[in-house]
Amino acid sequence: MYQIGHFIDGESVNTGESSSQIYNPSIGEVAGQVLLAGEKELELALEAASKAFPAWRNTEPVKRARIMSKFKELVELHSATIIELIGKEHGKISHDAKGEIARGIENIEYACYVPELLKGEYSKNAGPSIDTWTELQPLGVVAGITPFNFPAMVPLWMYPMAIACGNTFILKPSEKNPSAALFIAQLLSEAGLPKGVLNVINGDQYAVESLLKDDRVKAVSFVGSTPIAKSIYQQANANGKRCQALGGAKNHAIVMPDADIENASNALLGAAFGSSGERCMAISVAVTVGDECAEQLVSSLLKKIPQLKVGSFEHDSNDFGPVISAAHLQKVEQLIQSAADDGASLLIDGRNTPVNGPSSGYYVGGTLIDHVSADMLSYQEEIFGPVLLVLRCQSLEQAMQVIAAHPYGNGTCIFTRDGEAARYFSDHVEVGMVGINVPLPVPVASHSFGGWKQSLFGDLNAYGPDAVRFYTRKKTITQRWPSSSLRESAQFAFPS
Amino acid sequence: MYQIGHFIDGESVNTGESSSQIYNPSIGEVAGQVLLAGEKELELALEAASKAFPAWRNTEPVKRARIMSKFKELVELHSATIIELIGKEHGKISHDAKGEIARGIENIEYACYVPELLKGEYSKNAGPSIDTWTELQPLGVVAGITPFNFPAMVPLWMYPMAIACGNTFILKPSEKNPSAALFIAQLLSEAGLPKGVLNVINGDQYAVESLLKDDRVKAVSFVGSTPIAKSIYQQANANGKRCQALGGAKNHAIVMPDADIENASNALLGAAFGSSGERCMAISVAVTVGDECAEQLVSSLLKKIPQLKVGSFEHDSNDFGPVISAAHLQKVEQLIQSAADDGASLLIDGRNTPVNGPSSGYYVGGTLIDHVSADMLSYQEEIFGPVLLVLRCQSLEQAMQVIAAHPYGNGTCIFTRDGEAARYFSDHVEVGMVGINVPLPVPVASHSFGGWKQSLFGDLNAYGPDAVRFYTRKKTITQRWPSSSLRESAQFAFPS
Amino acid sequence: MYQIGHFIDGESVNTGESSSQIYNPSIGEVAGQVLLAGEKELELALEAASKAFPAWRNTEPVKRARIMSKFKELVELHSATIIELIGKEHGKISHDAKGEIARGIENIEYACYVPELLKGEYSKNAGPSIDTWTELQPLGVVAGITPFNFPAMVPLWMYPMAIACGNTFILKPSEKNPSAALFIAQLLSEAGLPKGVLNVINGDQYAVESLLKDDRVKAVSFVGSTPIAKSIYQQANANGKRCQALGGAKNHAIVMPDADIENASNALLGAAFGSSGERCMAISVAVTVGDECAEQLVSSLLKKIPQLKVGSFEHDSNDFGPVISAAHLQKVEQLIQSAADDGASLLIDGRNTPVNGPSSGYYVGGTLIDHVSADMLSYQEEIFGPVLLVLRCQSLEQAMQVIAAHPYGNGTCIFTRDGEAARYFSDHVEVGMVGINVPLPVPVASHSFGGWKQSLFGDLNAYGPDAVRFYTRKKTITQRWPSSSLRESAQFAFPS
Amino acid sequence: MYQIGHFIDGESVNTGESSSQIYNPSIGEVAGQVLLAGEKELELALEAASKAFPAWRNTEPVKRARIMSKFKELVELHSATIIELIGKEHGKISHDAKGEIARGIENIEYACYVPELLKGEYSKNAGPSIDTWTELQPLGVVAGITPFNFPAMVPLWMYPMAIACGNTFILKPSEKNPSAALFIAQLLSEAGLPKGVLNVINGDQYAVESLLKDDRVKAVSFVGSTPIAKSIYQQANANGKRCQALGGAKNHAIVMPDADIENASNALLGAAFGSSGERCMAISVAVTVGDECAEQLVSSLLKKIPQLKVGSFEHDSNDFGPVISAAHLQKVEQLIQSAADDGASLLIDGRNTPVNGPSSGYYVGGTLIDHVSADMLSYQEEIFGPVLLVLRCQSLEQAMQVIAAHPYGNGTCIFTRDGEAARYFSDHVEVGMVGINVPLPVPVASHSFGGWKQSLFGDLNAYGPDAVRFYTRKKTITQRWPSSSLRESAQFAFPS
Repeated sequence: MYQIGHFIDGESVNTGESSSQIYNPSIGEVAGQVLLAGEKELELALEAASKAFPAWRNTEPVKRARIMSKFKELVELHSATIIELIGKEHGKISHDAKGEIARGIENIEYACYVPELLKGEYSKNAGPSIDTWTELQPLGVVAGITPFNFPAMVPLWMYPMAIACGNTFILKPSEKNPSAALFIAQLLSEAGLPKGVLNVINGDQYAVESLLKDDRVKAVSFVGSTPIAKSIYQQANANGKRCQALGGAKNHAIVMPDADIENASNALLGAAFGSSGERCMAISVAVTVGDECAEQLVSSLLKKIPQLKVGSFEHDSNDFGPVISAAHLQKVEQLIQSAADDGASLLIDGRNTPVNGPSSGYYVGGTLIDHVSADMLSYQEEIFGPVLLVLRCQSLEQAMQVIAAHPYGNGTCIFTRDGEAARYFSDHVEVGMVGINVPLPVPVASHSFGGWKQSLFGDLNAYGPDAVRFYTRKKTITQRWPSSSLRESAQFAFPS
Repeated sequence: MYQIGHFIDGESVNTGESSSQIYNPSIGEVAGQVLLAGEKELELALEAASKAFPAWRNTEPVKRARIMSKFKELVELHSATIIELIGKEHGKISHDAKGEIARGIENIEYACYVPELLKGEYSKNAGPSIDTWTELQPLGVVAGITPFNFPAMVPLWMYPMAIACGNTFILKPSEKNPSAALFIAQLLSEAGLPKGVLNVINGDQYAVESLLKDDRVKAVSFVGSTPIAKSIYQQANANGKRCQALGGAKNHAIVMPDADIENASNALLGAAFGSSGERCMAISVAVTVGDECAEQLVSSLLKKIPQLKVGSFEHDSNDFGPVISAAHLQKVEQLIQSAADDGASLLIDGRNTPVNGPSSGYYVGGTLIDHVSADMLSYQEEIFGPVLLVLRCQSLEQAMQVIAAHPYGNGTCIFTRDGEAARYFSDHVEVGMVGINVPLPVPVASHSFGGWKQSLFGDLNAYGPDAVRFYTRKKTITQRWPSSSLRESAQFAFPS
Repeated sequence: MYQIGHFIDGESVNTGESSSQIYNPSIGEVAGQVLLAGEKELELALEAASKAFPAWRNTEPVKRARIMSKFKELVELHSATIIELIGKEHGKISHDAKGEIARGIENIEYACYVPELLKGEYSKNAGPSIDTWTELQPLGVVAGITPFNFPAMVPLWMYPMAIACGNTFILKPSEKNPSAALFIAQLLSEAGLPKGVLNVINGDQYAVESLLKDDRVKAVSFVGSTPIAKSIYQQANANGKRCQALGGAKNHAIVMPDADIENASNALLGAAFGSSGERCMAISVAVTVGDECAEQLVSSLLKKIPQLKVGSFEHDSNDFGPVISAAHLQKVEQLIQSAADDGASLLIDGRNTPVNGPSSGYYVGGTLIDHVSADMLSYQEEIFGPVLLVLRCQSLEQAMQVIAAHPYGNGTCIFTRDGEAARYFSDHVEVGMVGINVPLPVPVASHSFGGWKQSLFGDLNAYGPDAVRFYTRKKTITQRWPSSSLRESAQFAFPS
Repeated sequence: MYQIGHFIDGESVNTGESSSQIYNPSIGEVAGQVLLAGEKELELALEAASKAFPAWRNTEPVKRARIMSKFKELVELHSATIIELIGKEHGKISHDAKGEIARGIENIEYACYVPELLKGEYSKNAGPSIDTWTELQPLGVVAGITPFNFPAMVPLWMYPMAIACGNTFILKPSEKNPSAALFIAQLLSEAGLPKGVLNVINGDQYAVESLLKDDRVKAVSFVGSTPIAKSIYQQANANGKRCQALGGAKNHAIVMPDADIENASNALLGAAFGSSGERCMAISVAVTVGDECAEQLVSSLLKKIPQLKVGSFEHDSNDFGPVISAAHLQKVEQLIQSAADDGASLLIDGRNTPVNGPSSGYYVGGTLIDHVSADMLSYQEEIFGPVLLVLRCQSLEQAMQVIAAHPYGNGTCIFTRDGEAARYFSDHVEVGMVGINVPLPVPVASHSFGGWKQSLFGDLNAYGPDAVRFYTRKKTITQRWPSSSLRESAQFAFPS
């Protein structure tokens, strides 16, 4: 049993208003506890971040980048520890946790490019002997609130770029699995980040609301479920902060008749069941075009799903592990039941799946449900579990109408060999991240992450180029040096 | 007496739920009336804009740009008419209206660059044989709500770019002076814009609220006062729309001891009194550094202000005209009185100024108030009249603290010859648009317009490069073409 | 019989050292004569361009752009005249000349974006309190030397951007058909370009060499045949000028078995025979993959080619017109004969084709030659006539090896529906401009034009973004304002 | 006595056609010998680089970047060794060598940004249902030829970016001090670079000419003296390679009357004498404006120069060390004498300077020569020694005319506090790199390095953004997916 505190102003702070239990979902037991920040801890963090801002803002971008570069080395060096922390508190198998960390590191790398990314635009002779240029100045203190499903990666979507842009940061990770984020944050300190530039606060709704209310916080990045994302976005805006809030998803994969069905079914297995489906980019609906395609796909999946290994994070040979909690397990199981009740064909039922190891954890096996229709609850809700629905259509056009009607618009993909189908789909689908034969089209770090519709609240996407704009405010300077020999008269007209 | 209606789906629509009077502020008389849209007119406009979107979105950017280019020609051709319409309903002198139109045209020009501005980023081999690129896709129907003070220019900040990006648009101009905006919008139709792509609705708060509530509207651009900007921003966000809302200002000019005082005072005359100070970029406070500088500046202004000519828009020799309305005249006069009551030195009182022509209009002359301090109401409020306050400081540092303490952060400038002072000021001042020896640092069209703090709500500035990002949503496509000879196994780990 | 002179310093100059005849190739008769510049005319042009440079360089980019915008309007207005001039001196049918002008106008449009395109990069705090930025400054006098085959378009690839960037320009068009270029240049003068900024010199090799030798000329853009391009590139470089020299081509179209053969053959007809094949982007070799594909394609072409109409530019119903001259006609005919002599199958022989109208012009009809191999002269040489070769391969890989072995690398295309084939081809083919189901992949004006290998000499492509870099030189400024209170000691180490 | 060979295909190669002696200039004795490549070694390197290209080109940019990132760590780790190698063979004091390495590392860092820098431009709907994008593809084998004065840094200007862009590389360092470059190159191999991607060849003119002739070499980067730069540029171009060749310099610093003279003289000491003046960015001429300014500056320098410490690289307290060779020492001394002979005032004569340590090295002390005029040989030639000339002018205009008349245009700077003077100077001076109160305006790695006039041959500057364009060729792809239901007719007109 361990206890997790906070990291404030370069120091561990082990106090809290209260505490909360951390579970090991692979065995369904309490693993430790996390101290929840009260007014005192929050004030310490806000004070530290505010105090650190002026000097950090004036530090050259290239020097800020070098600390990030050193940080990247340390995260690589300590990746085994991080994998262990993620496994224990989240249940992610190590090959999956490794992928998560790799994607996090990618975002640190991209933050290292700030000497390039912060370049402003310079217009010589914008007017007669007048020059104009823009600067991208940091905002001040930025807060990040992150979810349980990527405890290492999602924080790294946020603070490396925010900090590289000259801001200071307060991170509030999920209280369900705070250890990885806290450990990683301390590595950045070790890499040479000045005290107070990055602070980690563990806490619950009180901490979130305090950050949303405090005037010293200038911007908030959030990743979580749609109702909370929406609420946080509105509160942040009402309090004069900029905000980007990423919410839920229901990602469809269209399988076209010309696709290589074996490849498609392999891709769907990983995309639907990897990390137990607890990914906002997981594919949860396969939309088949034509009956033959549907039959082939289902038949292929029926053969492969029973061979998947489900079990504890400690065995790398497992394909995926438990879901995050007992409560979430129950929700997933209820949604499976609802599909059956609504008349869908429950071809493979992952409830009471055999487990590779101790079965006291929160396990649900790969579940396949055919003949799903758009009016079913299991289709409308984000299940966030290893459940793949099959929805049968007769044409690409019909498949795209199904997608268009869903309130979420995070990710989607199409399996085809045909250039025209791929282009038509990617052009017209109402979804922010589109894969063509790529089941999880998570943009690389040099592009930005963002869904459409109810999947993202805000103008600017997460990480990548959009993050630079989000974490800075533009200043435009117009300069003219008066000639010493010139005397000018007043001008009353608007300058043109 | 004329009547102004709407422009919907390529047609004039002359109905309304009610109507409102349009005044000619130069003579203080009713000039016409404007029909205010009710549910019927709004529905017509929303329907037209929605219907026009799919085809317009698919039109090549270069073709959209060419219509904008033709539009520019027509605005130039008809500028005399537009100047007359602005003059009659706003009171702006023609040299000033000409400047306004020129700045509007600049924004049309910039919208013509969309084939360049809409380019996405393409990453070959973002992963193994995987390519990734971004597209900037239009949002759908966009609404713009614009103020009385730049009846021609501010609408042109918005819809040329929104439309060039592939959106359709509903403009609601100020009901105080709607004629110029309506006339100009029709020129765009004449330039070849398909029906329904641009619609103009005249209306009051009902129209605004309807646009903010309707799900078909995807984004809102607003320019007006801070309380309304804030409210509109929050409503738009709560209803799932992106929004940029520009509010009020209190712009300070710092005059350094090394400045050429005659040049600075000339510049201040135009910046403070041009357009009767009804500009969000008007300089309303001169902050002097050192006593000698203050004395010289005030002495220079005292000589020049009495020579200004105030009067009707019809005479181009006037320096500026009336304020917009009787109510606003009263507000300006009260704020002048409050300064005197609060102990400031009312050196030149523009109330009851001699008018060059009929005096029945809403006139107030150039007013100079010295020894103003930060606690006075006249300093805290945006006066939006031809009133220049002088606030005396002893150092640049002190002057910048004054600016930092004010809730607005729109524009500012410094007069100096010294490179160090200019750089220190522009780096650290908490204001979005900064002039160095440029009294009205309105960014040119190839840069973006945006204040800080209470002067702008939203992440992205108006017009220029930021407008491209505001009026589009990013789609990121990740593409991989399966080799026909390749069979791949399932991958459960997160892709890295 | 008319006489064509020069346009120097805003005036027509009708003198010359000698003269040369201009033919009307549609009837094979002399139409006029062109005066060839000697030392006197060249000195006038060089003097004018040099003298005009300092003021033009200091003119704001936005003002330079506005003249280009006005120029665009005038070219549109006078397009009928230009079509007539092209037709008479080149023989191009009006629908084709119209396309040429449209592409030229596109390049003027792109030059109008210079306020955006000339933006430099600004790095705040590149070092401690040190800012760095770049400016793209014009070079001075630039020369352009252009070929007969696009008498209107190719000059417009060059001078609009060169001039919009702040340079002054001397154009030497082809002496075979100089009228269109001269006429268009005068429209730019009419649009408000100051005297001397654009000058047109007609001349022969003497003029070319004079421009290449003169120190006042800072850069040369050339389009023509490969041997001359290479020679001009080397001379220009030896004389300290930057140069881009575009040469010849032999463009292959790969037809894949999955392509829609009727679409492909239609596309090839236009791409091979349009403008009598006198285009550096013309498709002159169809490379078929598989025997069935070859048979189908040839069979389709055999049906369609005999229906093509060849004749005078005056009839818009003609598909294409004559080649440029009697000498060129003879060369094309000899290359056709050589193919037959070398053992290829001369399926359709365009020599002595029936002509729609007077047959005294330089006509050769659409020619189809099958079973061509890489060792034949007709394959190795650029024919520049309406001759389509068919080279049969058995795989995409083999087809691409054929292309790789050819010394030219200008354009190419592939016909397929398959995403993988398209990506593999476009990634690996050693050609600068690649079409996927686009037979003439001429980049639009917002991208740049440039082949690889012997098709282009120089680092930077023609028009588009590369042209901005070509027509400017970069200046990098590093700025630091000393604090008045700071005294610094000497630093002997290299600044880091 | 050590022997230095080559590094080819991942292996040390210790053969050579002949050899050459390496001196330790601090003591004037032979330190080792370098093997000079003959045909065999060159063929090995060319073969290795060619063979390694296809796989390296296909490696994802992010993976190439990661090897560069690891390389950076190794260079940092081994910097003491590199400093020692530079010191022994070049004579540079360690504080100076450290600065050199830091600048080299900066360039490695910038090469790590290639996932961002290689992004192409993507135009959706460039035509009707037609998309166009650009790719920046590597060239193949690139060669770099580097000078003695920055044995570690200049190679790092070249190959990190060339390699990160997907090229393979052959480096030929100066045979005077090859050890540092060879050592560093091996670190890149250790960082994981595949064999053959980077090869180091030591050699003389034979090696250079072989590289310039071989068809497998696609591009050449050169830094050295102007006559050789010019010759290499022409040879490379004649052989169909792209080339950038950087040559000599004569850099002027203007000292304005309003400058802080003590700061300026301190800055000049380091800029003129640091690294014994053997820098292409060294300030070699101080141009004073006004007599008082000249007197003050000279008087300040007269006090400070005698305190400079000259001696062996082994003592970090020395300000600078020897020049590179006995022959160069003689040349510097002759140019000093010529100034005296021509009538200039030899205020401080560095010949026979007292040396801090053994005096057998090639030492010349800080030399100050006043009243220099533009007709003197010492002014016209690049001395490349610790010699500062003072040229007295009466106005900024006159000072700038002096600079304009010099054939070189590499770097320059101005000392002033005045914004107008700085802007006028930086706008109009005919020099590529401009400092405002920055004596050595070497651009940071995120900008590019390049002089004007005789200081650089080529269109594109070294390192920074220009290097990305130099080390890649642009491919433009135009794509259209035919609709299966569409049959299109031939189009003979030029596509518009």
